[in-house]
Amino acid sequence: MKEFDLIALLTRDLPTHEGVVAGPGDDCALLDLGIPDRFVAFKTDAVVEGIHFTADTPPEQVGHKAIARVLSDFAAAAATPSAALVTLALPPSFNPDRVQAIYAGLTTTARRWNVAIVGGETTTNPDRTLLSVAALGTVPASRTIRRSGARPGDALFVSGELGGSIDGHHLTFEPRLNEARWLADNFPVHAMIDLSDGLAGDIRHLAAASGVGAELFENSLPIRRAAHLRARTGQSPKPPALAALTDGEDFELLFAVPKESAVAVLDAWKQRFPEVRLTCIGRVTSDPTLRIRDARGPRPLPTHGYVHFA
Amino acid sequence: MKEFDLIALLTRDLPTHEGVVAGPGDDCALLDLGIPDRFVAFKTDAVVEGIHFTADTPPEQVGHKAIARVLSDFAAAAATPSAALVTLALPPSFNPDRVQAIYAGLTTTARRWNVAIVGGETTTNPDRTLLSVAALGTVPASRTIRRSGARPGDALFVSGELGGSIDGHHLTFEPRLNEARWLADNFPVHAMIDLSDGLAGDIRHLAAASGVGAELFENSLPIRRAAHLRARTGQSPKPPALAALTDGEDFELLFAVPKESAVAVLDAWKQRFPEVRLTCIGRVTSDPTLRIRDARGPRPLPTHGYVHFA
Repeated sequence: MKEFDLIALLTRDLPTHEGVVAGPGDDCALLDLGIPDRFVAFKTDAVVEGIHFTADTPPEQVGHKAIARVLSDFAAAAATPSAALVTLALPPSFNPDRVQAIYAGLTTTARRWNVAIVGGETTTNPDRTLLSVAALGTVPASRTIRRSGARPGDALFVSGELGGSIDGHHLTFEPRLNEARWLADNFPVHAMIDLSDGLAGDIRHLAAASGVGAELFENSLPIRRAAHLRARTGQSPKPPALAALTDGEDFELLFAVPKESAVAVLDAWKQRFPEVRLTCIGRVTSDPTLRIRDARGPRPLPTHGYVHFA
Repeated sequence: MKEFDLIALLTRDLPTHEGVVAGPGDDCALLDLGIPDRFVAFKTDAVVEGIHFTADTPPEQVGHKAIARVLSDFAAAAATPSAALVTLALPPSFNPDRVQAIYAGLTTTARRWNVAIVGGETTTNPDRTLLSVAALGTVPASRTIRRSGARPGDALFVSGELGGSIDGHHLTFEPRLNEARWLADNFPVHAMIDLSDGLAGDIRHLAAASGVGAELFENSLPIRRAAHLRARTGQSPKPPALAALTDGEDFELLFAVPKESAVAVLDAWKQRFPEVRLTCIGRVTSDPTLRIRDARGPRPLPTHGYVHFA
């Protein structure tokens, strides 16, 4: 059974109530707890040794990644994270110095984003280290952004570059919190998601939630140098464009804006974030299929991004 | 290194900010996010196969336990849980029927307490199943209860019965949410904690946070029948009173009220919750030691409750 099939099965009939503004299926859950004009954003994310990092990964980067992943989900919702809880599951033979260094990486990143670490838990996971970070924050009720708002004709943008994240980016990326809040404050962003499974997988989530399709422009994909390098040296069997579509763990923003706003978004972004690439990579279609177009014309988008369960 | 030593090390210098009302060291973190007259309560808790349940544990009970543990922390803070996120870390060879049944147990309990399941995550934990549940809710700002408010002379109470939880109680207990909120609404509760590590361990946390000591009355301990039975049949080497002090996973409330309120609390509780025992088990002392008294006089309290890392 594939991960997404399992999730579909488990989320079929979940308890909910009138305070839930956005539940399963968005990057962050959104709750109306009575804060005037704001919703609470709530999200959790786990990293597991052997899956998301190895026993050799520098521990500070393990800690950074553990919290940066969940902060990236706050970016996708244009929310401001406020506090986090850390669950640390460790083998009985853990190395205290390594654990402290993991924590140091985590708290350094938390401090940079003004996220309080308000508690946590240590427990035993006999065979490997696992960190789960739960975070909450807020977002103005008037400008919530979800996956489900993309409309036919919208221009699709991605921040940064895609592919080859395994070369180090997946351990050192910064969540696009500032970029996302600036976008939400200044432009009518219809839908947004952070790229964790790979563009080909995540655009499927955004399109399905919005009831639309999309056409990507293969020649416009912003491919990370590492993806080119890994293809050229044979480290990866994937051509660079396929790496950009399916490698995963890019932690960039994919968002949809009305096509009338596309040029204004690009110009203003270049002024505000000159060091971060922004690329128009396609458009939203009413036809609910997903295609990618090159000089020879459109073809179906490769089926999957990164899928945990094979 | 013991679990509590590790936690002390990791929580020495955590990022915080002005919105944090209660951080590490309380059952729930409390945050002021701008809800009029209320704080947000935030807590996470994990259960691990082979530690908190086995491969043979009925899956509905695994799911129940996973969320009931975190709800028990909300009870300790007299808070009302509102929403939860579920992290499910599974071996690649997971049994979909068992996973669905775990989820069914979890959602049934969530529904009973009006807790929305607003999302979650599945990830891979190659060797064993691990569930982590993060929950948030609210508590009136005017009646927050923490571990740190116990004062010399206070009477110490525990709900329910203690010891021998391994016989089944640890899989089927109900969090004392109603009892805790009723207490907080009607009596000046100075401090409260839920008993997860065992009375002897958890009273140490409450006393340390409050800067006080305590004297327990051994002959008053409400000992669960299972603790007597396990001692009598040799299933446990612990005498029943030691089991009540150190077995752990009781998930009962331990709380301190002014001694002037003690009789009123007992009488009103008996009226309101006739099916749940409430026992005065000791008193808070200014001398910061922990003692237990029987007919022969006081002696030091056994050092530890359940400790994860040996």
